[in-house]
Amino acid sequence: MADHALRLVRLGIDTHQEPVVYMRADCHVCRSEGFTAHSRVRVTTDSSALVATLNVVRGDLLQPGEAGLSESAWTRLAARSAQTARFSHAPPVESLSAVRAKIYGHALTEPQIEGVLRDVAAGRYADIEIAALLTAFTSAGLSLDEIVGLTRGMVAVGDQIHWDREIVADKHCVGGLPGNRTTPIVVAIVAALGVCIPKTSSRAITSPAGTADTMETLTAVDLDLPAMRRVVEREGGCLVWGGAVRLSPVDDLLIRIERALDIDSEAQLVASILSKKVAAGSTHVVIDIPIGPSAKVRDAQSAAILSRLLEQVGRQLGISVRTLLTDGTQPVGRGIGPALEARDVLAVMRASPDAPRDLRDRAVTLAGEVLELAGHCAIGRGESAASAALSDGRAWAKLQAICEAQGGMREPPQAAHRCDQVALGAGRVLAIDNRRLSRAAKLAGAPSAKAAGISLRVRLGDPVESGEPLFELHAETPGELEYARGYLDAHPDIVRVGAAG
Amino acid sequence: MADHALRLVRLGIDTHQEPVVYMRADCHVCRSEGFTAHSRVRVTTDSSALVATLNVVRGDLLQPGEAGLSESAWTRLAARSAQTARFSHAPPVESLSAVRAKIYGHALTEPQIEGVLRDVAAGRYADIEIAALLTAFTSAGLSLDEIVGLTRGMVAVGDQIHWDREIVADKHCVGGLPGNRTTPIVVAIVAALGVCIPKTSSRAITSPAGTADTMETLTAVDLDLPAMRRVVEREGGCLVWGGAVRLSPVDDLLIRIERALDIDSEAQLVASILSKKVAAGSTHVVIDIPIGPSAKVRDAQSAAILSRLLEQVGRQLGISVRTLLTDGTQPVGRGIGPALEARDVLAVMRASPDAPRDLRDRAVTLAGEVLELAGHCAIGRGESAASAALSDGRAWAKLQAICEAQGGMREPPQAAHRCDQVALGAGRVLAIDNRRLSRAAKLAGAPSAKAAGISLRVRLGDPVESGEPLFELHAETPGELEYARGYLDAHPDIVRVGAAG
Repeated sequence: MADHALRLVRLGIDTHQEPVVYMRADCHVCRSEGFTAHSRVRVTTDSSALVATLNVVRGDLLQPGEAGLSESAWTRLAARSAQTARFSHAPPVESLSAVRAKIYGHALTEPQIEGVLRDVAAGRYADIEIAALLTAFTSAGLSLDEIVGLTRGMVAVGDQIHWDREIVADKHCVGGLPGNRTTPIVVAIVAALGVCIPKTSSRAITSPAGTADTMETLTAVDLDLPAMRRVVEREGGCLVWGGAVRLSPVDDLLIRIERALDIDSEAQLVASILSKKVAAGSTHVVIDIPIGPSAKVRDAQSAAILSRLLEQVGRQLGISVRTLLTDGTQPVGRGIGPALEARDVLAVMRASPDAPRDLRDRAVTLAGEVLELAGHCAIGRGESAASAALSDGRAWAKLQAICEAQGGMREPPQAAHRCDQVALGAGRVLAIDNRRLSRAAKLAGAPSAKAAGISLRVRLGDPVESGEPLFELHAETPGELEYARGYLDAHPDIVRVGAAG
Repeated sequence: MADHALRLVRLGIDTHQEPVVYMRADCHVCRSEGFTAHSRVRVTTDSSALVATLNVVRGDLLQPGEAGLSESAWTRLAARSAQTARFSHAPPVESLSAVRAKIYGHALTEPQIEGVLRDVAAGRYADIEIAALLTAFTSAGLSLDEIVGLTRGMVAVGDQIHWDREIVADKHCVGGLPGNRTTPIVVAIVAALGVCIPKTSSRAITSPAGTADTMETLTAVDLDLPAMRRVVEREGGCLVWGGAVRLSPVDDLLIRIERALDIDSEAQLVASILSKKVAAGSTHVVIDIPIGPSAKVRDAQSAAILSRLLEQVGRQLGISVRTLLTDGTQPVGRGIGPALEARDVLAVMRASPDAPRDLRDRAVTLAGEVLELAGHCAIGRGESAASAALSDGRAWAKLQAICEAQGGMREPPQAAHRCDQVALGAGRVLAIDNRRLSRAAKLAGAPSAKAAGISLRVRLGDPVESGEPLFELHAETPGELEYARGYLDAHPDIVRVGAAG
């Protein structure tokens, strides 16, 4: 074994989450093991081991006797400089046979699914293998049993939070509707009324902002479990990023590839949502499903299927799920992007005169549903209770208290570079393409550039003059502003203006 | 644009075929363009451009003002050291919407498929996107029209050879059967009888030898198109490596990911085979489909489906395809590995007394089919014509002439290091594991070590004594011999000997 050892070198290359090992083409390990590019290699130190994808190096990037590691490989292995490691062919990943079975249309058992998820979580899958898995889930589809298995598997592979309460409320939005940032408002209202709502949210997957991205412009969201518990004990609610508490961690690994591929599977969506709810210890969950031609769910029929799946899988996992089908024909509020959406939230909470009415209404409806599902209000009384808590400042006080408990509240940033997109002709706003609007916001830098995004000036049905601004583009760098503008020039019809039919 | 320029550095990292660009996290281009890990980046020089996946570098691997390129990026871009390049976000790849449509089960049109293939060939797809494409093809399946479209698209994206002849014959083997090196014999026979057969072959992909690897031990195979034409004009046939003439180049890009995922799609296989035949200008093609438990096609039913598809798609593309289902339960001939297979071929051509009978029989059958399909012989007369040309030395003279025309004929090399694998008990040979036998030959160095591989001493049903040699291992270095022996020790049952049932 001694001659299969090499000294580890940190090359500082960030390959995203896929671990990569770099080895000289002429090294004795490469040659005797028969490694070629794209081989999977097992790296073992005294204390740790991982499987990485091999990149072969020619030239003098590495000295004889050295092997390089990517940042993710270095971190996962907890390697030390000049530490010695042993190298061998990665053992075959047995669970990949289940992926292949799924590709060929066979149903998977719960143990097979859990095996796949464990191997993904342990980093044993190459990115192209995760891509194949997700494509097969979407293309071949999953049965109800498989979705239940997928959800349970996702829960099993991560941590679980247990709250010492009978009722733990939660809300979720299926997404796809830019600016639909009701969560902070709903949490503030529900917690203000004494119903426990320890909310963990995700960062953006394919959208220009997730709730965690938006909340991060107001306070710290990267709390670990003990810190989250302290906030919830004190305030009865929180608004943190779910990733720090390792709930359903495999979901994040899958989502990373799902995002790069820009695909969504219903089954994957249901498992993703419900596994995080179960792992977070939620008992009563309201799910907002916006419907619109360019929202994530495009028609009432798909919404009904998804709604039914969520309720069925929820039942099998022992939680009460209520879905709410909502209008998804245009963005909610004005802002699209983390900071811009946070501004809308603050305007509603502070009852500013220019607060977006549609965002307030949606949040109140959802909060009312949560209050009713959790048994805090009688059926039909939730919405008025929610509205009252918002109007009289209790919700706003609660949001501030939660942000303070999470580490202090701050104002969202402003973008340094902006420009208006104007109407090319007069008429009424006939349609808004949510997907392309989101894409433009992302090209402008959202969500990683927090201040970047789009601020809408018009809504469906509004009359506009030629040359009047339809929306404003926000970016943190001139390059990003230019890039988004290039996209808008190629797609001038994102906000369609014309003669009303 | 000047401040989006960086000096190119060749890092010597072989990421296989996916082009990767390495940029410092703190460089002005990264920051102003908002690049993050896994972004797709467009790199433009004065003379060339490509799209690459971004790896962000922290630390001092690169100096400020530098950008690194992987080997494939460097080659594609034909970059020079310290050349300046400009960097920008890659434009969205429009054809990915067709991939998504396929994932969701929609049929693709021929222009959609061609669009996808053009973008793959141009390097605009990341590996995970190719993985999703191949998985969708396998999982959702392709209709006959789609397979025809895929085949035509693969042809359209590469070069095409036009021969000024009415009949251009070809033969192909679906593969998976070690030692099945009939091609040189078939070409020699067919060309000797005056039927034009300009054969392009591949190098080994997953096997210990491809026809091009084997032929390379006898003559030069790396001919460009004009050189290939000269050989064919003179001899009516050739035996060259197809890679030098860029026939269906996108196929190689797909196969690389298909192999890493270990999935086979029938549709993909049919398009892969026939696109190369059409691009090579073939009009009459015989395809050998070996069937066996450890061959590529495992049962008669799969073979029948594949056979039907090949014939149907061939018809739509205007070529005559005839398939031949053959026995794939054990290796053909004795040798496995480039030089060892070449020795078998030479023994058959020279009619040596120890020539492997099974190899001769298969080659004669296939050559007979080609002669009949091409109209040179009446139905039922091909095999005897082929056998005669082999027996009377015409085929051997033709093979020598072809090799001379390609640059001169040589004898295949002999391995310096060998050892016997002996039977541990007495009995009959009950089974031979083709896959593991191939793996052992590869571990011994094949196909890159030309003399390496395995020489079989027994065939199914042969009686053996304990201690009698089952096969001989050949390697060019003692290390490789040891490595292959280690594998054989771990798998003593590759040739299974026991009491006949």
